[in-house]
Amino acid sequence: MRGDYIAIDWGTTNRRIYVIGGDGSLRHTRRDHCGALRMARSDYPAEIGAIRADYGDLPVIASGMVGSSRGWVDVPYCPAPASIADLAAAAHACGDRVFIVPGISVHDQRGCDVMRGEEVQVFGALISGAVSSGALFCQPGTHSKWIATDDIRICALSTAMTGELFALLKSGSVLAEMLQGAVTNGPAFAEGVARGMGATDLPSALFQARAAALLGARAAQDTASYVSGLLIGSDVGARDLAGRVVTLLADGDLAILYRAAIEIAGGTVEVIDSNAAFTAGIQAIYEAM
Amino acid sequence: MRGDYIAIDWGTTNRRIYVIGGDGSLRHTRRDHCGALRMARSDYPAEIGAIRADYGDLPVIASGMVGSSRGWVDVPYCPAPASIADLAAAAHACGDRVFIVPGISVHDQRGCDVMRGEEVQVFGALISGAVSSGALFCQPGTHSKWIATDDIRICALSTAMTGELFALLKSGSVLAEMLQGAVTNGPAFAEGVARGMGATDLPSALFQARAAALLGARAAQDTASYVSGLLIGSDVGARDLAGRVVTLLADGDLAILYRAAIEIAGGTVEVIDSNAAFTAGIQAIYEAM
Repeated sequence: MRGDYIAIDWGTTNRRIYVIGGDGSLRHTRRDHCGALRMARSDYPAEIGAIRADYGDLPVIASGMVGSSRGWVDVPYCPAPASIADLAAAAHACGDRVFIVPGISVHDQRGCDVMRGEEVQVFGALISGAVSSGALFCQPGTHSKWIATDDIRICALSTAMTGELFALLKSGSVLAEMLQGAVTNGPAFAEGVARGMGATDLPSALFQARAAALLGARAAQDTASYVSGLLIGSDVGARDLAGRVVTLLADGDLAILYRAAIEIAGGTVEVIDSNAAFTAGIQAIYEAM
Repeated sequence: MRGDYIAIDWGTTNRRIYVIGGDGSLRHTRRDHCGALRMARSDYPAEIGAIRADYGDLPVIASGMVGSSRGWVDVPYCPAPASIADLAAAAHACGDRVFIVPGISVHDQRGCDVMRGEEVQVFGALISGAVSSGALFCQPGTHSKWIATDDIRICALSTAMTGELFALLKSGSVLAEMLQGAVTNGPAFAEGVARGMGATDLPSALFQARAAALLGARAAQDTASYVSGLLIGSDVGARDLAGRVVTLLADGDLAILYRAAIEIAGGTVEVIDSNAAFTAGIQAIYEAM
């Protein structure tokens, strides 16, 4: 057993720091907005110093966008299928007892895909036994990730720009004004999910949402929920979910909306604690290094 | 036969002014960027005055976004199926010998859709005999319009946010950097069209375009053409084009790209002169008023 260490889930926008005991127990955690987009490459050594000043001069293991071309060091992806041992072996040493866990890439006949960060939670959930056998993992967000596993390996991956498309439409499109309202899990959202699932004409369905509001066929204040449903329905509908268990790595509103959409698609949802999954996953990777 | 008049194709971004003889002959035309987005509602009377100062104190007939909630007067849509006589009867008088042609709306079991401005070109092409019988009209752009006609009536309409989605992705998404290159009609564009046609997972296909460039599976400089192909392929693939003639209301690069995509989808393209179509269409509407 090793001593205490610091683990960092260092994403694009946010960062969560965990102080973990050598036995894997969580001693402390804090979240802030110091994601990779806010950092220059040269900022990272000082950031690590500041974190150690708060929590002790401990080893640091980090995952996520910190290891990308927009982060500290561009750590090459580990190709799928990838195990905990594969990630540990490819961890990148970065200065004094600092390690960055690589992301995972897929390149098969269905195309290319990549992830950085989500893999730690998936491995944590798998080894903690908290998930159903054969479950498909889904981490919704700006870029929704759908991750398939085989034993304790990540073997397939599909990312959809669901959250980013909604944000783009809300910020600067002809739909922007109609998308400022709240997104809620109600009839308009469900109608959008049904229209988006399997749709081959998403760019038309988006415009029709505007036309329906202009013509009074849908209340303008329901447009945000409907369009969110369209996009999440397209995302969920692109997976074969009938009769399948989906392990949802989410909380809050996004968990509610994805649960609803997955159930409309015939799937069953189980939700896990993503902090617990991260600490279990990073502990396993750290122990394997 | 009436005397000379001024016709204005007054869109969101651009405006084209035509001075037309009572016999329908084009005397003069000019294009500028004084679209509806640049105008306050109160600016229009002075704009009309300035145009008349240039071309004479003539009757004015305008179509397009000038007649929308973002324009001068929100002229109610004419519901499809709509004829030239229907548009003429619903033209909105707006001050001294100024008329705004309404747009057309569709509200059927496939949903709602609207257009403002494209209908004039479609009618002009139909009455001039320049198009094949049963042709489907396509006006690509920020919002691509697909218009089906029946005799000299517009009976169905579908709009796709194709151009706007590309612009949003190029301006502010994770793909932005990769989309700054030129879009050309080559193998990457064709590959995108093939992937986008009939795709039920467009938000995933967009992310895969990024992953393919990151993993070296596609040259980064081909990403703009590929993503343009994805979106245009999705747009074209949502129509049943096999064996069909499409009348393309476009010129320049967009005409080249849509022609290529339509041909990949099994359609045949005919291109018409959109200025000539506009003047023929507005003349017919004006005569019917």
